[in-house]
Amino acid sequence: MDALFNLENICVVLVESQGPRNIGSVCRAMKNFGLRDLRLVNPQTDHLSHGARQMAVKATDLLEDARIYASLADALHDCVTAFGTTRRFGKYREDMLLPDEAATMALPLSTDGPIALVFGREDSGLHTAELDLCQHFVTIPTDEALPSMNLAQAVALCLYELRRAQGKIQIADNGKALAGVQNMEKMYAHMEESLMSCGFLNPQNPDHIMRAFRRIFARAGLDDREVRILHGLWSQIDTLNDQLPVSSDG
Amino acid sequence: MDALFNLENICVVLVESQGPRNIGSVCRAMKNFGLRDLRLVNPQTDHLSHGARQMAVKATDLLEDARIYASLADALHDCVTAFGTTRRFGKYREDMLLPDEAATMALPLSTDGPIALVFGREDSGLHTAELDLCQHFVTIPTDEALPSMNLAQAVALCLYELRRAQGKIQIADNGKALAGVQNMEKMYAHMEESLMSCGFLNPQNPDHIMRAFRRIFARAGLDDREVRILHGLWSQIDTLNDQLPVSSDG
Repeated sequence: MDALFNLENICVVLVESQGPRNIGSVCRAMKNFGLRDLRLVNPQTDHLSHGARQMAVKATDLLEDARIYASLADALHDCVTAFGTTRRFGKYREDMLLPDEAATMALPLSTDGPIALVFGREDSGLHTAELDLCQHFVTIPTDEALPSMNLAQAVALCLYELRRAQGKIQIADNGKALAGVQNMEKMYAHMEESLMSCGFLNPQNPDHIMRAFRRIFARAGLDDREVRILHGLWSQIDTLNDQLPVSSDG
Repeated sequence: MDALFNLENICVVLVESQGPRNIGSVCRAMKNFGLRDLRLVNPQTDHLSHGARQMAVKATDLLEDARIYASLADALHDCVTAFGTTRRFGKYREDMLLPDEAATMALPLSTDGPIALVFGREDSGLHTAELDLCQHFVTIPTDEALPSMNLAQAVALCLYELRRAQGKIQIADNGKALAGVQNMEKMYAHMEESLMSCGFLNPQNPDHIMRAFRRIFARAGLDDREVRILHGLWSQIDTLNDQLPVSSDG
């Protein structure tokens, strides 16, 4: 499978992380979703310790390859743009993105160079001066009863959305999963014929209803199996039609 | 904001979890996304140990309220339906849901009673006999290089999607664009009856095809007019059925 947008061009930046196990868990999540570039800004713990390796499981290679920086500005030196994660709204409110929106925005930008996804401290997140180094702001919608997420889980959610966005864009672009246009048109032709002969479509204006169905199926994006199921339904209607007594004006 | 679908009616079931810290992390994720009901099937560790409490942070109440069961069947005794998470495809391949699809399907069902989201062992997941107790199957798309996710991260992803789906469905019900869930369910009931009586659905397993249609329409997001058009199509099939000569074995 050719990745149209290479997630390896997206880096995860952890600012002053305190827990070695969190850093290890982040590595595992990164490898789960096809990322490789981990950058640690002034880590407050040994990121190569036993706990970190234990949580990284088969992603210790990412842990060992992680680069250390003294400041967030240093870590972002070669990045095209940076997405900062925060639960603090304030002056960033208007620009706040949900993870799926951020992913859809980040992917196409990643063809121009590294894109950074920046996560703050476990207890106090990113400081204002650090958020000022970011061009976009991401927040994960959580419950008021306990809004603060585990660091590695927050990273995993954002990477999952990147992967989802990548999948969508790939499916759209190389047409593997979705039924091709020819198959869809064949299905629509069958549908129109069946629905016309059973009297559901108005012969004066069949397009009116057909267009509504075209919109529904276009929004859904059908795969081959789903197209076959629809053919089956139209064939069943054909069978019913064939069993009907011939009408007197037929 | 009134939650139309109460996520508290969705329970997380962990089967034979080995890590106390994972169980604690799951509690935190549950509270992050507004869930409360944790069920542990034959846990292989003390879920009230220090490590579990440490990772639960402010969600130790969920840890303390967790109920223990000897078997998955016991844990599911009052559940309307169960979604099993798995990376094994095999015989479940056709029915495999992505987390967002599972969330969209689970939410409306949760008005009828508890819905279970079932997660297996850290190292070997759910066994076949356990998957057989589930009606739906969920998989998280990950990279071949490291497909296996951390348990608590996998739970967090699924709960995040439930929360996202809740938001979407609420927007739908506040009335502007999408048809309400009740209207959709009424349409599905009509559809199932019509397609059953015309012989399109297999009476032994109508869910198989109905689920395919539910996925299509859930992805598309139907408005009221589109739901009326579908009702019209099923009514037309009803009319055809009524006109058929009564079959000899009818």
